Order: sequence, then structure tokens, then C-alpha cells
Amino acid sequence: MTASTTNSAYECRQQIRHGTITGPTAGLAPGYVQANLMILPKPLADEFLLFAQRNPKPCPLLAVTEPGQYEVPAMGKSIDLRTDVPRYRVWQDGALTDEPQSLTDVWRDDLVSFLIGCSFSFEEALVAAGLEVRHINQGVNVPMYRTNIDTMPTSRLSGPLVVSMRPFKASDAIRAIQITSRFPSVHGAPVHIGDPAQIGINDIHQPDYGDSVAIKDDEIPVFWACGVTPQSVIATVKPEFSITHAPGHMLITDVLNTTLATL
Amino acid sequence: MTASTTNSAYECRQQIRHGTITGPTAGLAPGYVQANLMILPKPLADEFLLFAQRNPKPCPLLAVTEPGQYEVPAMGKSIDLRTDVPRYRVWQDGALTDEPQSLTDVWRDDLVSFLIGCSFSFEEALVAAGLEVRHINQGVNVPMYRTNIDTMPTSRLSGPLVVSMRPFKASDAIRAIQITSRFPSVHGAPVHIGDPAQIGINDIHQPDYGDSVAIKDDEIPVFWACGVTPQSVIATVKPEFSITHAPGHMLITDVLNTTLATL
Repeated sequence: MTASTTNSAYECRQQIRHGTITGPTAGLAPGYVQANLMILPKPLADEFLLFAQRNPKPCPLLAVTEPGQYEVPAMGKSIDLRTDVPRYRVWQDGALTDEPQSLTDVWRDDLVSFLIGCSFSFEEALVAAGLEVRHINQGVNVPMYRTNIDTMPTSRLSGPLVVSMRPFKASDAIRAIQITSRFPSVHGAPVHIGDPAQIGINDIHQPDYGDSVAIKDDEIPVFWACGVTPQSVIATVKPEFSITHAPGHMLITDVLNTTLATL
Repeated sequence: MTASTTNSAYECRQQIRHGTITGPTAGLAPGYVQANLMILPKPLADEFLLFAQRNPKPCPLLAVTEPGQYEVPAMGKSIDLRTDVPRYRVWQDGALTDEPQSLTDVWRDDLVSFLIGCSFSFEEALVAAGLEVRHINQGVNVPMYRTNIDTMPTSRLSGPLVVSMRPFKASDAIRAIQITSRFPSVHGAPVHIGDPAQIGINDIHQPDYGDSVAIKDDEIPVFWACGVTPQSVIATVKPEFSITHAPGHMLITDVLNTTLATL
């Protein structure tokens, strides 16, 4: 994974920083990695780093900052994590307290930022391979489900794996497994295919997050580990202070999606 | 990566634990992952975890324990990190003080163990693909070199990347790049091919560690990030206490090498 500077991604970040772009980032700066953001005070950050090491499929780390650091040169030119995401969520004692467009008023020197890979990167590769990604074609959010699969815990952090689902014909499902296996830093290969009940999903048409999508008779549901997992795990410990991106409002980086492929 | 129990790997560990096997582990339990071991007191371990996140090619983490934990069920049945490596190196204030066959006398409740991927895993895949791995055929250690490539530092941990080198004909070099790209958890794709001077190696026949190997006129040297890197980086901070495996005396796990492949 190497960073390359591009006007497109850089200019998107500038427009976000100055409030010209305020909405979701899907479709912006095509070809460039968009990252989930998780910001935690240092002591909890140490433990979350271990949780991510043990759970790389739901928590694929692209970068981790030093405490207080808000620039991430390896991920993009002049990135400022306090201003370059269109909308943030600020949490106090586990409760959502604000959804600001900037963190300059709440930034602290003990905050460690985690940039976490996102399925946008592999979905681009799926579309480039000619596969139909259902929720994109339907113009809705990807359906996500809590499963009965446990994450590998640390002393305080634990909870069920959350997955996203995309339905495919068998031949496309095979191709989707091949393609996403090449992208371990953005969730990688699926964790399950076929019968939703085997991973504790009782009704595939009632996702726990996102929207339901149509599944045709000749299609197989394919399930990937999802970046909502770390958010739900962190929520269980109700940290005194934490920050995430608002859903769909990601950090746009200068890293090309294609550079994430292992082969 | 999943663990499967095998008599072969398990029995090797038992023989090591009971002193029946005391030498290097190369060639033992073919097919199973062998891991480098790095054991650090908790505060430095937190920082080393961050260093490994930032430098996954030289420091591919297979598992990280809780402080004091010496069992690693995910990596193998009844593993005891205090007894299941044939020979350890104990370091105090940066100096090698002992090379014991067991850690039971020196174990501490604040010690965090890192199991780090090793090139044995990808070398097996190279040999299985019909490639000649020179140092194996010559019966010597792989040649290793300090480079002028910097690792990505943390506040206290920094230093040059150390690489290992294997020479191949062009077509085999291409195949070796493909094959090792599939194994990101054991150093992954090469970091350099061709001219050694470009990465600060002045004399390819004078490795900094290991042994020199023959390079034929039609062969290209291929360089991979090496697990000696974290050892040399940790050595620079002279930790008050740390433990590593003795060179070549690895931890044999129950994880199949093939399960590490991304595709």
C-alpha cells in the first residue's frame, strides 16, 4: 500500500474541510480508498489495537496515529483528521452527544485515531469485474446483520461479529470470493455463504443495520465481516469519550484501491 | 487462518517440551506454520504492537497474548510458550544473558508474547511450486542484509529494514513474487528485486546475518522483509527484560501453512 497524491482525492478533502461537501462520500474520488474512522483515548486505544490484531477481518487497520496526531502523511497529502470527514459522531459515556462537521472544538492530545478499511474498496473491484452489487444497483445501504459468531475478545472488548451481505449467482459468488480474497486490508474473503441461519441470522429480509435488498431464487447470499463490528464492540464499554465518522461519511485518502490488492 | 490439531506438530512440541528435541526446527512438522517469538514487558509491548501495525512486512503478527498468558489455543493444542521452543534467548538491558531451554524460572506476569510469521511458510510454497531455494539447496542459512530503507517508526522504535535474499532466474522470480504475494502474514511480496545498491547493500556476498549463497549470471536477487528487523529494532532500546527464540529454534504451531494464503 503506497500513497499517491491526486488532485481528485485531495480536492475532495479540501471541499469537505471548507464545508462545500457535507454529505455522504460514496461515489466521490473514484478509485481511492475511503476509510472508517475510530478515535479513542490512549488507554482504550491500546486495547483496541490488540482487538484489531485479533480480528483483522472486521477491523482491518490502514493506519494508527500517535496520541494527539491529526495528520496522516502516509494516507494522504495534508490530511487533517479533525476537519476532513464531512460529519463526525461524538460519543460521551456511550451516548451520542453531537454530530459536528469539525472536531477542532473537541480535539484532545490523548486521542488516538484508527483508519479502518471499508467495503467500498472491494465493491469497486467487484463492479470492475462486471458483477452486479445489489444494494448499489438498488440505491440503498448494504444490509448488515449481527451474527452468532463471536469476535476474539481482549480483556474488556468482546461481542458478536457483524456482517454485510451481497447476493450473487453461484458463478459470480465464486468470482466475488476470489476478488475479495485479494483485499485482506478491506475485510478480505467472505466469512460465510449460503444459509443465513448457520450464522444466527433468522430473517435475511430484516437486517439489523442498513436496508433489505432483493435476493433472486438462483442467488446465494454472501457474507463479509463488517466495519460496524468494532463500533458495536466499543459501544458496549461506553467509553467516557470517543469519536467516529457518521455512517457513510468517510475519510477519502490518496491511496489507490488497487494498491491494496495482495496479487 | 484456522488451527487444526495434528499429532505431528503437537508431538514435536511435546518432544521439545520434554527435551527430546533441542535443536533447530527447520524440517520438523512439514506443512505447519513455525513462528518467531518476541516476548516483552507490557509497556514496551503496547508500543511494539503499534510498530508491527505500521510495519506488517517485517513484523507480520500471527498472535499476541495477554500479559502473563503462555497458552495460545488459536495457534495450537496445549501450547506453552515457556517450554515449547527448543531454545530461547533472554536479554537484560539489551545484553544476551542466557540461552535456556525453558522459561519457567524467568517467566513474569507482565510479559506479552508476539508470534511473528516466518519465511519458512512461504519457502515451503516456493519449493512446492518447483522453485529452487538456493540456501536450502546449499544447506546454509538464508543471507540477510541491513538496508537503507527505514521502517515506519513509533515514538521509541525505529531502525532500518532488514531483508533476506533468494536468487532466481527471471521467470522463477516472477513466480516467486506471485506466490509470496499470497502470504501477507509471513512477510508477503518482496520489497525489492535486482540491484542491491538501490537499497543500500554494497556487497551481496557479505550478508550482515546468515550465510552468503551463490548467484548465477542469469539470476536476479529477490529481497523480502525479514523477521530480524523487529529484533534489531527492539535491541536499539535495550529493554530491561526481553526474550526471543534462539535463531532457527522456532515455535511449531498447529496452523497449516496453506491456510495463510489469501487466495
